Amino acid sequence: MALVVKKFGGTSVGSIDRIKVVAKRIKTDWESGQDVIVVVSARAGVTNELINRARSLSAVPSDREMDMLLAVGEQETIALMAIALQSLGVPAVSRTGPQAGIVTDFAHTRARIRSINGGDIKERLAERNVVIVAGFQGISERGQVTTFGRGGSDLTGIALAAALDAEKCEIYTDVDGVYTADPRIVPDAQKIQEISYEELLELASSGSKVMQARAVEFAQKYNVTFEVRSSFNHNTGTIVKAEAPSMEDVVVSGVAVDNNQAKIVVRNVPDRAGTAAKVFQVISEAGVIVDMIVQNIGHEGKANLTFTVPRDDIYKAEKAVKQLYGDEVTLSAADEIAKISVVGIGMRSHSGVAAAFFAALAETGISIQLINTSEIKISVAIKPEEADEAARAVHDAFGLGDQPNGA
Amino acid sequence: MALVVKKFGGTSVGSIDRIKVVAKRIKTDWESGQDVIVVVSARAGVTNELINRARSLSAVPSDREMDMLLAVGEQETIALMAIALQSLGVPAVSRTGPQAGIVTDFAHTRARIRSINGGDIKERLAERNVVIVAGFQGISERGQVTTFGRGGSDLTGIALAAALDAEKCEIYTDVDGVYTADPRIVPDAQKIQEISYEELLELASSGSKVMQARAVEFAQKYNVTFEVRSSFNHNTGTIVKAEAPSMEDVVVSGVAVDNNQAKIVVRNVPDRAGTAAKVFQVISEAGVIVDMIVQNIGHEGKANLTFTVPRDDIYKAEKAVKQLYGDEVTLSAADEIAKISVVGIGMRSHSGVAAAFFAALAETGISIQLINTSEIKISVAIKPEEADEAARAVHDAFGLGDQPNGA
Repeated sequence: MALVVKKFGGTSVGSIDRIKVVAKRIKTDWESGQDVIVVVSARAGVTNELINRARSLSAVPSDREMDMLLAVGEQETIALMAIALQSLGVPAVSRTGPQAGIVTDFAHTRARIRSINGGDIKERLAERNVVIVAGFQGISERGQVTTFGRGGSDLTGIALAAALDAEKCEIYTDVDGVYTADPRIVPDAQKIQEISYEELLELASSGSKVMQARAVEFAQKYNVTFEVRSSFNHNTGTIVKAEAPSMEDVVVSGVAVDNNQAKIVVRNVPDRAGTAAKVFQVISEAGVIVDMIVQNIGHEGKANLTFTVPRDDIYKAEKAVKQLYGDEVTLSAADEIAKISVVGIGMRSHSGVAAAFFAALAETGISIQLINTSEIKISVAIKPEEADEAARAVHDAFGLGDQPNGA
Repeated sequence: MALVVKKFGGTSVGSIDRIKVVAKRIKTDWESGQDVIVVVSARAGVTNELINRARSLSAVPSDREMDMLLAVGEQETIALMAIALQSLGVPAVSRTGPQAGIVTDFAHTRARIRSINGGDIKERLAERNVVIVAGFQGISERGQVTTFGRGGSDLTGIALAAALDAEKCEIYTDVDGVYTADPRIVPDAQKIQEISYEELLELASSGSKVMQARAVEFAQKYNVTFEVRSSFNHNTGTIVKAEAPSMEDVVVSGVAVDNNQAKIVVRNVPDRAGTAAKVFQVISEAGVIVDMIVQNIGHEGKANLTFTVPRDDIYKAEKAVKQLYGDEVTLSAADEIAKISVVGIGMRSHSGVAAAFFAALAETGISIQLINTSEIKISVAIKPEEADEAARAVHDAFGLGDQPNGA
């Protein structure tokens, strides 16, 4: 029998009524002959409630106890989902992350999976049970409950699909799939039929938060094909899989907007070898992830260094640079910026993408502050208030609104 | 160092503020040198919320999934209590029932403890951690989460105290201890200083629900001395321990009222050997616990059988008897009754208790419908509307309001 792992996020199981709807959907698939593993998140809002309770007791609750606390959210959902399925006549059993044999390292609140033995899931499936597994959680080799961080249930779904050799993994969410752009910004955005792991990762890192990046990387590493689709309708979603030759025909798969960046300019940096390395070393040690970087050609032994960081990390980044150079350098006030990216595997074999991108922005009078490129992505930093217009112009320029995109 | 197990019930940890108060109290004891294990229940109301969610999905949710669901209530509290203690500078770690090595049989929702190895509790205590253990839950030998039924956290506290050889177990609740009668009914009821396990059990079975009976039986079996006291003040509570010679000086320890009984009369039962056995066999098979029983002397080969059952079980008991005898017997409409009991170890060596009891009721004009006696308890069934007056009269007759009772 075909084994399918189905992961439902917090909004998909957010209420008793939603749980009933999802249970009916699972029943239909189970009756059609599928062997089904269901991975569920905590009901929407529950994790935040738990965090608020912990914060009202301590400003810095220990990671270990936060994991013990947060794990209850998913444990509640698996039991409720099993009860909902049983009430429809579908045999179902729930399993916590530890019971599913999801073993992790010791990094509480951001644990990484070391191994999955599946516990007794195979036996329960063989008896035609639907097995419901708590997402987001595992057990350390010392027997402690661990969690994977926000969006960790995606990882549970993908990892179980890999470990138990599932035919397919379905990631159910509140959107229909991956789009060529955010439909709230670009009205004629199209759902993408197929996309490669790399493209999805680049879109995610550019602000299109469809899935946790770690889950996608895990899928790529173990070659797990998965589908992102909606739990609110029966539309087909977006298939995410290893790069296929046909994908290269599509030069640009999507346009992403990231409104959460800020630009820092450091002036009068000593213009000698190793300076950039030193700066980004201290910023990294402060736990800040730098995105785009530009270094001007120096004159009189000094250079200017421009880079972007998440807005929440501005203070940490500035502090790290000041500690390194003191008054020797001048820091500009951090400017909020938006990052517009185009992503596509086809860029590798098609030239002129950057030129077309920049031309589209120029035609709408939008000026570019920074440029950053990777093998399958081109990003520019612009003013936040021009982001939506830029996204629409670029989406148009690459013809993404014309027809369904993909292979 | 003296090891003390402290169990806090649902109202004692019912809110963030209550958790803070309890954490401060624990800190004081820990600073005084105690080694502390804390057992907590789910926050008041949480278990009912979870049950309601399950019921809105299924009229008869499976016991196995109910255990998975209900176990989250205590898991939340242990994490919050650990965080509260840590924020006060007290090193604390939480452990679920399974992590504490509380192994049970397979009877989901009413599991019995088979063994307790304590997990790593001893090591954590040796490092001067306060260890917080989830009450009410364990793990079956097949690795499944099990729960002990309502009030099961008392059992966890007592059983951990026995298994880890604690010097003392403190059961914190919302009352000051065990009283000679319910102070809401008998205004001059006194707190009992010391009471034996048997007396507490007889009081509990007579409607004074201070603690789960199984927990008291467990304490008796393993000779665990415990104190019932309030988490809302620092008054000394009631010590519950093995029978001591001095306890026999107290003829009557307390008066209990049970308003939850109903009387069923079965007329024209065949008056031959084995009849009563047959009747109570079928009622027991229906899952109904019979309390008081009276069989009249028969005439013309027929007898009348009178017994009491919990009010909620009237229908089940009547159905069982009808299935056994059909139209051969006549069932009276079940009468609601109240049961008034006096309990005391001293009864064993003092005569005249029953006479004094009945006289006190006669003086207030209350007529007795049924009488039942055990070695240390006398119970009578009376009309429910006369229960409060009866309790006050009997409490007076035995001088229980005069001075603090106990050794």
